[in-house]
Amino acid sequence: MIETGIVGASGYSGEVLVRLLAKHPRVRLTTLAARSLAGRSLAEAMPSMADIPGDLSFIGADPAALAASSVEVFFLALPHGVASEFALPLVEAGKVVIDLSADFRLHDAALYREAYGADHPAPERLASTPYVIPELAAPGWEAASLIACPGCYPTSVQLPLVPLLRTGCIESRDLVINSVSGVSGAGRKATEFYSYCEREGSVTAYGIPRHRHAVEIEEQLGHAAKEAVTVQFVPHLVPMVRGIQTTIIARAAVSAAEAREVLRQHYTDTPFVRLLPAGKFPDTRAVAHTNRCDLSLTHDPRTGHFILNSAIDNLLKGASGQAIQILNGKFGWPATDGLL
Amino acid sequence: MIETGIVGASGYSGEVLVRLLAKHPRVRLTTLAARSLAGRSLAEAMPSMADIPGDLSFIGADPAALAASSVEVFFLALPHGVASEFALPLVEAGKVVIDLSADFRLHDAALYREAYGADHPAPERLASTPYVIPELAAPGWEAASLIACPGCYPTSVQLPLVPLLRTGCIESRDLVINSVSGVSGAGRKATEFYSYCEREGSVTAYGIPRHRHAVEIEEQLGHAAKEAVTVQFVPHLVPMVRGIQTTIIARAAVSAAEAREVLRQHYTDTPFVRLLPAGKFPDTRAVAHTNRCDLSLTHDPRTGHFILNSAIDNLLKGASGQAIQILNGKFGWPATDGLL
Amino acid sequence: MIETGIVGASGYSGEVLVRLLAKHPRVRLTTLAARSLAGRSLAEAMPSMADIPGDLSFIGADPAALAASSVEVFFLALPHGVASEFALPLVEAGKVVIDLSADFRLHDAALYREAYGADHPAPERLASTPYVIPELAAPGWEAASLIACPGCYPTSVQLPLVPLLRTGCIESRDLVINSVSGVSGAGRKATEFYSYCEREGSVTAYGIPRHRHAVEIEEQLGHAAKEAVTVQFVPHLVPMVRGIQTTIIARAAVSAAEAREVLRQHYTDTPFVRLLPAGKFPDTRAVAHTNRCDLSLTHDPRTGHFILNSAIDNLLKGASGQAIQILNGKFGWPATDGLL
Amino acid sequence: MIETGIVGASGYSGEVLVRLLAKHPRVRLTTLAARSLAGRSLAEAMPSMADIPGDLSFIGADPAALAASSVEVFFLALPHGVASEFALPLVEAGKVVIDLSADFRLHDAALYREAYGADHPAPERLASTPYVIPELAAPGWEAASLIACPGCYPTSVQLPLVPLLRTGCIESRDLVINSVSGVSGAGRKATEFYSYCEREGSVTAYGIPRHRHAVEIEEQLGHAAKEAVTVQFVPHLVPMVRGIQTTIIARAAVSAAEAREVLRQHYTDTPFVRLLPAGKFPDTRAVAHTNRCDLSLTHDPRTGHFILNSAIDNLLKGASGQAIQILNGKFGWPATDGLL
Repeated sequence: MIETGIVGASGYSGEVLVRLLAKHPRVRLTTLAARSLAGRSLAEAMPSMADIPGDLSFIGADPAALAASSVEVFFLALPHGVASEFALPLVEAGKVVIDLSADFRLHDAALYREAYGADHPAPERLASTPYVIPELAAPGWEAASLIACPGCYPTSVQLPLVPLLRTGCIESRDLVINSVSGVSGAGRKATEFYSYCEREGSVTAYGIPRHRHAVEIEEQLGHAAKEAVTVQFVPHLVPMVRGIQTTIIARAAVSAAEAREVLRQHYTDTPFVRLLPAGKFPDTRAVAHTNRCDLSLTHDPRTGHFILNSAIDNLLKGASGQAIQILNGKFGWPATDGLL
Repeated sequence: MIETGIVGASGYSGEVLVRLLAKHPRVRLTTLAARSLAGRSLAEAMPSMADIPGDLSFIGADPAALAASSVEVFFLALPHGVASEFALPLVEAGKVVIDLSADFRLHDAALYREAYGADHPAPERLASTPYVIPELAAPGWEAASLIACPGCYPTSVQLPLVPLLRTGCIESRDLVINSVSGVSGAGRKATEFYSYCEREGSVTAYGIPRHRHAVEIEEQLGHAAKEAVTVQFVPHLVPMVRGIQTTIIARAAVSAAEAREVLRQHYTDTPFVRLLPAGKFPDTRAVAHTNRCDLSLTHDPRTGHFILNSAIDNLLKGASGQAIQILNGKFGWPATDGLL
Repeated sequence: MIETGIVGASGYSGEVLVRLLAKHPRVRLTTLAARSLAGRSLAEAMPSMADIPGDLSFIGADPAALAASSVEVFFLALPHGVASEFALPLVEAGKVVIDLSADFRLHDAALYREAYGADHPAPERLASTPYVIPELAAPGWEAASLIACPGCYPTSVQLPLVPLLRTGCIESRDLVINSVSGVSGAGRKATEFYSYCEREGSVTAYGIPRHRHAVEIEEQLGHAAKEAVTVQFVPHLVPMVRGIQTTIIARAAVSAAEAREVLRQHYTDTPFVRLLPAGKFPDTRAVAHTNRCDLSLTHDPRTGHFILNSAIDNLLKGASGQAIQILNGKFGWPATDGLL
Repeated sequence: MIETGIVGASGYSGEVLVRLLAKHPRVRLTTLAARSLAGRSLAEAMPSMADIPGDLSFIGADPAALAASSVEVFFLALPHGVASEFALPLVEAGKVVIDLSADFRLHDAALYREAYGADHPAPERLASTPYVIPELAAPGWEAASLIACPGCYPTSVQLPLVPLLRTGCIESRDLVINSVSGVSGAGRKATEFYSYCEREGSVTAYGIPRHRHAVEIEEQLGHAAKEAVTVQFVPHLVPMVRGIQTTIIARAAVSAAEAREVLRQHYTDTPFVRLLPAGKFPDTRAVAHTNRCDLSLTHDPRTGHFILNSAIDNLLKGASGQAIQILNGKFGWPATDGLL
């Protein structure tokens, strides 16, 4: 049993991570560090976790103390900018660090500055930190001690697009991406905008013309296409708690049968990504509370487009579930351990 | 006081229409005809209408009897194919007919056959029946006795696009339209798919690659652009009752300031369409239970696109509210009569 | 046309009141006073009101200035404690004041102190200010200048109970009242508890053992029963925006037929209260966006109880709709004016 | 690894049971029998289960074939009346049968006839079949081969009441029970009443004056009180998918401190039932997707009542989670196995 800890567990994805680690058959969750919850028991601070055995309590989040602890693997569920304050000393101390923040997702420090409005604290680490969607990452990432776990919008976009771009099944220009997200994607909120009465019955676009995640999406799609890619990305909020549905319009470069075959083969041996039969479309409800991504590819002969749809649970495949998948891959365990 | 009647009032938009006519200061609602509800009182058949005064009861829907009645204006809230069975004899008998069905929305009988899978029963009437979104229709439509009232997706698409296409502010090629709709758009349903437990938390695309409404949208946009227009239209269902939010990606042909000015001027004197200030985006909640359409236009200099967003209440501006607006326009009454 | 104004219009019931007055055929809404919104236009401060004609803007809320204005009727949509600062000078200046706050709902100053934790600023006005649920209030209230408009829970409780208590159809002891409320009952909120992600899927009791509204309910039921009444009142929050459903368990003192006949007769000539046929139960959805209250009475011969159910829209019959009903009654206008 | 099977897995609780067994560390799920799904693969028939490994497919539900299979433990997720057709031959064949239907929940055949309108097919089995809420059932139930798993309303009612009735902390007369349930409690539905547009925003009582579950509740509370108990039980539907919140008004016979101590002690060593601190109230959201029941006890000195609140997830502690708890208890495994 490997000893694990979470730093910054107070948000919704942190909460999901607590449960995933508590039920994982190969690890023990021994450390919960969160400044805002220090000193409180798990059951009291997070009532929905009250059935988790053990007497877990939150401690303060001190990098040096955590580096000196017996925990082998740390998950960072921290805001960008803060995560790197923990990631570097923990890696230095020999820990494995799976970072759910945005701090090591970009490989280009200039893009980081553009997207996050501040200089990156450790730009020299950016290029060497693997960006791991396990179904897409280049083999060898398992050797790394610090691993960037991608988030919700980028995961829902890359799972359908990357295999098709790599194989030239679609053109890399004129990609139009519309995503709708459940409200938990914004994290815990105490604002009127995120109040129940304002979100119920409300659908609205936001963050355009250039959402932060578009920067990350473009960098990764560029790697896949082996050329610079510019996308039109429009995120929306819809009245549900969990889930992301992404609809992508891409110019077809091959037949629908060929493109479907590329996706089918790419995802053959993966338990969490599934290409739906023609005429079926991904539904956020079908993937909610699972680590799955459902995909569909539809050809429109009138426009010459493929319409690609994907659905994930933003707190699982879009955050904490993906982090557990990374853990399983890193240690060579079965992909579904702790994730059913 | 003009005497009005509704044929086929049993659906959600029919229900909304009952209330709108009941509170309209210039009309009396005297006739409710619906096969499935014949003989039942309004309060019993539609509990939410129980405060409407008068002793309204449903009668059977017989074209000849309705043609012989004293009602001056009929609203048809019937399925396509059925509406024309009523529209033609009622118009013949000198009635004004405002048709909320799809029967007279297309001007080309071949397109009707393609979209609805049957020959149109009165193709000779198609070209002469005005298609009236009041803010966009060519002047003179008020003289017609039979008027087609457009529905929810097409209204949400045309209000932002038509003024821009007419003035050449955008290119007419490569239009990508993503819409999300509340569940009432599908009408009253008794299926597992539309059950609460299946729709709650569910976002999914449907009806692709070519939804029926895309045919209507393309015909109308073609009139505006004065050339054939092909669009990529992807509708989605989201977990709310009312509302449509549409996001359109269009190639800019002028500056954002020029395009915004075109929209601003076009909608200056209209109470129901509003261009939001830059940085604000239409929200279905803000237009719910109103006849309004909110619009936004955002320029992305990286892609050269305008991102156009619109939001309406599908049962009001997308159906019954628009029908009342047509009534007000036809009789020269103030646009907001009965619509506040 | 009578000139009207709203003081404190920034909450959800204030917003509803704006629309009700804007569409009322016998009044003009000329004044919107709200400290937090002073200087902003209606359309900008409340996007959902953007179709309301006129150039309404918010002004600051200054009692003296309002007292000097030409407005004849003021609606106070203010927090308790604040409302009386406006009510007294406005009444003094000859205005009609319809107060939606709790300030003049209790007749006993000691109860006010117990419920609201502060001395009442004008205890001498309490006994003489009529408490008006129009269907229940004693005739003659129309002569008053200051009128207390009861709120959501008390209205949903009194409409079924008061006629039965007055006529001895039920015993006044052992009343158990369970109410569930939509989230808008708590007003505009910027707290984590009221955030979408926390309220969705959440049902919970609150405010027990003694909610403020229980004090008001007991005082009014005591008047009806002509003896002191103690109730067990348990309010709950449920995941919807609008609506209150109340379930009351009362000891039957007469047959179900007699009790139903008392309710039927009491509400015969009222457009807004409806006794449902046996076997049908009030549904918040059927009364949403209306000023109605639906009622049912069910007898359980095993327990000797009547089960009374009621449903209202908390923002209409439970707040602003009731205020308009009071306006109509005060001026002798038809009850449904502006309320369909 | 014990081999398990489910008969009648097509409903919502069947679906949940599939996942619970698939992830349970001590069992293999090898058999899924459901008439309506025979021949279909799990992933195709239940898209949300597509990540469950193995090539599970549904077979027809034939009692004789199932009795001859190698499966050791069967879960019956069948309608009442049908379950006994399977339970008896399977038990006869030496299988363990955990029955989630109502067929063996009542001990009195006359009550069964009253509640279900038909004679019980095996009345001689009723008295000897243990009714097992694991936290409440008398020791020794583990020896039985056929075990009745109680459902949602009765579980939410008995967990707070039974320890208090057994110890005389409350009186057994005048119990008033109000429950609200999420829509999944009604199972998969294809009716207009259960459609999204009808349930959203809808709260309504139903099934009064005497719901079927009241019969079961009264029989069990009678065992606890050692005298006949009559309750007033009012169930309601609210717009959420999962969850039951129950509010009980009971006459206090001891102090609040004593009653709280009884509950605290009774549930000390149970991972799934938790008494909340005074001033906190159970919330369906906090127990959703867990097997927990949260409880609160509040004393009202004015009325002499205890107000008892409980919340569970109807598909877990109110159905399939409880069935797994029974499995764990039957085989002496840790209570939380497969339930975190």
